[in-house]
Amino acid sequence: MLSKYGPAMSYLAPLDDITFTLNELAGLTDVAALPGCEEASPELVAAVLEEAAKLARDVLAPINHSGDREGSRLVDGAVVTPSGWQQAYQTFVEGGWNGLPFPQRFGGQGLPRLVATAVDELWHAANMSFALCPMLTQAAIEALMTHGSDALQQTWLPKMVGGEWAGTMNLTEPQAGSDLGAIRARAEADGDCYRLYGQKIFITYGDQDLTSNIVHMVLARLPDAPPGVKGISMFLVPKFLLDENGDPGSRNDVRTVSLEHKLGIHASPTCVLAYGDTEGAVGYLVGERHRGLEYMFTMMNVARHAVGVEGLGIAERAYQQALAYARERIQGRPIGASEQASIIHHPDVQRMLMTMRCQVQVMRGLCYVWAAAFDAALRHTDAEERARQQQFVDLLTPVVKGCCTEWGNEVASLGVQVHGGMGYVEETGAAQHFRDARITTIYEGTTGIQANDLVGRKILRDQGSGARQVMAIMRDIEDAAGSLDEIGDAYRDGLAQLDRATAWTLEAATADPRLPAAVSFYYLKLWGVVCGGWLMAKSARAAQGRLDDDVANADFYRDKLASASFYATHVMPQAAALANTIVHGAEAALALRG
Amino acid sequence: MLSKYGPAMSYLAPLDDITFTLNELAGLTDVAALPGCEEASPELVAAVLEEAAKLARDVLAPINHSGDREGSRLVDGAVVTPSGWQQAYQTFVEGGWNGLPFPQRFGGQGLPRLVATAVDELWHAANMSFALCPMLTQAAIEALMTHGSDALQQTWLPKMVGGEWAGTMNLTEPQAGSDLGAIRARAEADGDCYRLYGQKIFITYGDQDLTSNIVHMVLARLPDAPPGVKGISMFLVPKFLLDENGDPGSRNDVRTVSLEHKLGIHASPTCVLAYGDTEGAVGYLVGERHRGLEYMFTMMNVARHAVGVEGLGIAERAYQQALAYARERIQGRPIGASEQASIIHHPDVQRMLMTMRCQVQVMRGLCYVWAAAFDAALRHTDAEERARQQQFVDLLTPVVKGCCTEWGNEVASLGVQVHGGMGYVEETGAAQHFRDARITTIYEGTTGIQANDLVGRKILRDQGSGARQVMAIMRDIEDAAGSLDEIGDAYRDGLAQLDRATAWTLEAATADPRLPAAVSFYYLKLWGVVCGGWLMAKSARAAQGRLDDDVANADFYRDKLASASFYATHVMPQAAALANTIVHGAEAALALRG
Repeated sequence: MLSKYGPAMSYLAPLDDITFTLNELAGLTDVAALPGCEEASPELVAAVLEEAAKLARDVLAPINHSGDREGSRLVDGAVVTPSGWQQAYQTFVEGGWNGLPFPQRFGGQGLPRLVATAVDELWHAANMSFALCPMLTQAAIEALMTHGSDALQQTWLPKMVGGEWAGTMNLTEPQAGSDLGAIRARAEADGDCYRLYGQKIFITYGDQDLTSNIVHMVLARLPDAPPGVKGISMFLVPKFLLDENGDPGSRNDVRTVSLEHKLGIHASPTCVLAYGDTEGAVGYLVGERHRGLEYMFTMMNVARHAVGVEGLGIAERAYQQALAYARERIQGRPIGASEQASIIHHPDVQRMLMTMRCQVQVMRGLCYVWAAAFDAALRHTDAEERARQQQFVDLLTPVVKGCCTEWGNEVASLGVQVHGGMGYVEETGAAQHFRDARITTIYEGTTGIQANDLVGRKILRDQGSGARQVMAIMRDIEDAAGSLDEIGDAYRDGLAQLDRATAWTLEAATADPRLPAAVSFYYLKLWGVVCGGWLMAKSARAAQGRLDDDVANADFYRDKLASASFYATHVMPQAAALANTIVHGAEAALALRG
Repeated sequence: MLSKYGPAMSYLAPLDDITFTLNELAGLTDVAALPGCEEASPELVAAVLEEAAKLARDVLAPINHSGDREGSRLVDGAVVTPSGWQQAYQTFVEGGWNGLPFPQRFGGQGLPRLVATAVDELWHAANMSFALCPMLTQAAIEALMTHGSDALQQTWLPKMVGGEWAGTMNLTEPQAGSDLGAIRARAEADGDCYRLYGQKIFITYGDQDLTSNIVHMVLARLPDAPPGVKGISMFLVPKFLLDENGDPGSRNDVRTVSLEHKLGIHASPTCVLAYGDTEGAVGYLVGERHRGLEYMFTMMNVARHAVGVEGLGIAERAYQQALAYARERIQGRPIGASEQASIIHHPDVQRMLMTMRCQVQVMRGLCYVWAAAFDAALRHTDAEERARQQQFVDLLTPVVKGCCTEWGNEVASLGVQVHGGMGYVEETGAAQHFRDARITTIYEGTTGIQANDLVGRKILRDQGSGARQVMAIMRDIEDAAGSLDEIGDAYRDGLAQLDRATAWTLEAATADPRLPAAVSFYYLKLWGVVCGGWLMAKSARAAQGRLDDDVANADFYRDKLASASFYATHVMPQAAALANTIVHGAEAALALRG
């Protein structure tokens, strides 16, 4: 229905494409066969997605735009979330969604990462600002579950998994952003626990009015800490200390100083937190002293993947909105037509929508395939296979994070463009996606940091052997795409460009490691483009195989073939351009005078 | 100086690069030799730019960010501009800036478009929201000067040229955006004048408190108008009718209904205007009946170029801010360094800043070269040369508009990225440029419309002969770049790709005109990339020639060579990718089901 500002800002989970991606690209049945994943039967996963789709459509999506307009506010030192937020959170928690990927012994659902990824896509698409709250809680749970003592876990995890309490990550300080070695917040022993002092900035949901307690995971230095990255410890610092019954009791010495006024995600409160203004904030050491940064790194794959999924979610939402607008908006006569028509009939609008659709499908494939590998790396019975899958996860983490967020921004921007002048008017909603998406290439490591991680830690450190193994996995489709010439040819050329760029990277680093760093951004994008080609070729093969025996869904499979063909001709040509810049452009990038 | 949020948001006009571009790329001396341009001596132009730079730095730039925060507001039916706006406008008008490109007989300065372009760049860079007011006045002046009767011109032009009164353009209606043929506003004869009725939307500075009158140029239909584009007339409708002394007297029947709440350019009031709510708005026919749209088209080149210059201005501003931030912000240890350093020493930050710098230089070259050709097309003594220059102007107008705005968005986005997390915080100012820039690819014809104009009107209509002539002009550098192998090779390859894509476009259109339309966006970008290569090659040749005899500025010329080398390796490889998509991708783009 057209409102004054275009189609209603609704969101419907694309369950057909999600199911296709789960089954045909990510191998859901293989994941369900892993020890501990037995519950993830096709029927259960379908039921979970159906329910999640309803929640996303009926509860989260309707307050996305109003949440943006209203924003979270700081009132008398406490964050007030937008109208509807509390009720939505209650509904979310009561549905058991908060603990989806966590062990049943802590009250979770014990579902594999792959299923959690599909569900997370829905939350971010429906309402990214809202979804950040459970996303940060999950990160804090992950930290505690992996590194906390049994006692800490017993005390804090059940209510965090259930969502009664939320969690946050406290890393950044004004002088310590990408460089966490520069952290100055300090912790001093005080009996069984510690007292924390210092300021943290950019703390997502650092305060809110949704949960009865907030569990901050805080990086700080002990007095005897060595300087730099090896002297940082992790502490659990609750907003409220627990009383003898384990319930939130007295207020801890952590204060919300201010909220940032941001470009987007207005409903997600980004806090400046002050620890220890008076007597010191009570905290509990997580794991061992001085190993906090190491702990952060073990969580990094999951956290970065989660931001990639944000890019996917926001892109899907922007695509749905643009598609609906293009179908409704009557303007001009398409070439060869005698009547006015909706703008979806204009070739350049089709080009934009196809670009959006194909990028979303590639992002979905990449995020889901990563998650399936993550599950296998954790649970496969064969150690060699676990190692192989872990290598895939490690190498593709920066690609998922870097590329899905860059593409997410491109897709959101195209969403504005499809709307024309109405896209620039905030009431339409397209602009919100554009603003919200813009943070994703920045937090949890900027694209540049992803690119350096890819080149420095994932390529150079093992002299490319991991990359070669991943590319071997990606060659599973090379020959099979024989009957899809255009797609197969484009993909094979992409792989050759990736080979060439990888060889140059290894070679150039021996001369000057700044050289590959200067073009690492393009190398990251090249991986993304070629992975996209891989996933599109696989999609096309699967779709071709199904066209005959699933007549009811023939249009869906034909669209899959069309997407692959579009990707082969509109995106894959970038591979050669990227490789050319990588091989020839490094020195020119370093010519800037400081 | 670092404020809480980074370097002060100052703006210094890049007079060295502007002067280089005027002289070495746009040929200022040739322009000054044209009849009527004699005043544009190097000394006078330098003095004009010095003064404009001061105004931009001291008056316009300081209120850019505050204007964004405050925004223009509608109070009791009248627009109130942000604090400082009135004083700035007064200063602007008193300096004679409003009439810079207009004839001295109407009180203007009579300077060529080339000089006006350089000055306009400064206004948009300093404060795009402010600069939109004189920009729209100039458009209205242009319309009146070209098509209005002597009587209308005598009555209205002197005060519009002086800036005492402002002008606006009233085209869009809710159902008539890109398709002006759908306009419904109507006009009825009433004695010597007309009465207008209807609603117009998206009217930039449709109301304001800066001038004592506002002159609206309004498109509307007369009762006997044929349907569609051939039935639209242009009317001059003032906010205040003039009394017997020619001064603003009684209020005309035009009312500001509301302001749009936009993604950016918050200080520029975007109005919904209602004409003829009561007795009908008094209007005066401009030119002949039913020829309004034709008149709009004659102004279109200048208007679209002006938006391209906006893209340039905002990109330059974003670049300056990112460069300052990168020099100040200390974070991390650059590869191979033992100490922390400012982020400008990180290779990927250098890559981003070099991208921004090179794109800005190419945009400047393109906007200025276009303006020089515009002056020659208007004033050259030789008719054949005038025609040749006009062809250049016509063909490159969509390229200037389309590419400089797309690049402007990319550069502004990189500006946010260089700032990291601080870029997402509104107080820093980087986000404002990102939001402001976003409108430029939309208004005055979206990028898709530019692309269709390029392919449909500029390539297909004359079977590519205009394109071939422009490419002949662009071959002036091909051989001369011999000693700059990398740059020359990349440029020659770009030209070959453009040849190939043009040949395909002509061929494909005979089969189905939707085919070239589906990839016209890439064709537009290809022209932009190759024009950039042309300008970079010319810059490199000029810089190389000057390196020896202008030792004092050796760093400047070395930077020019570095820019050309960067462009050759980082941007020119896109040419082949774009051409490949053009040649192979059209059918895939049309596969979207409506």
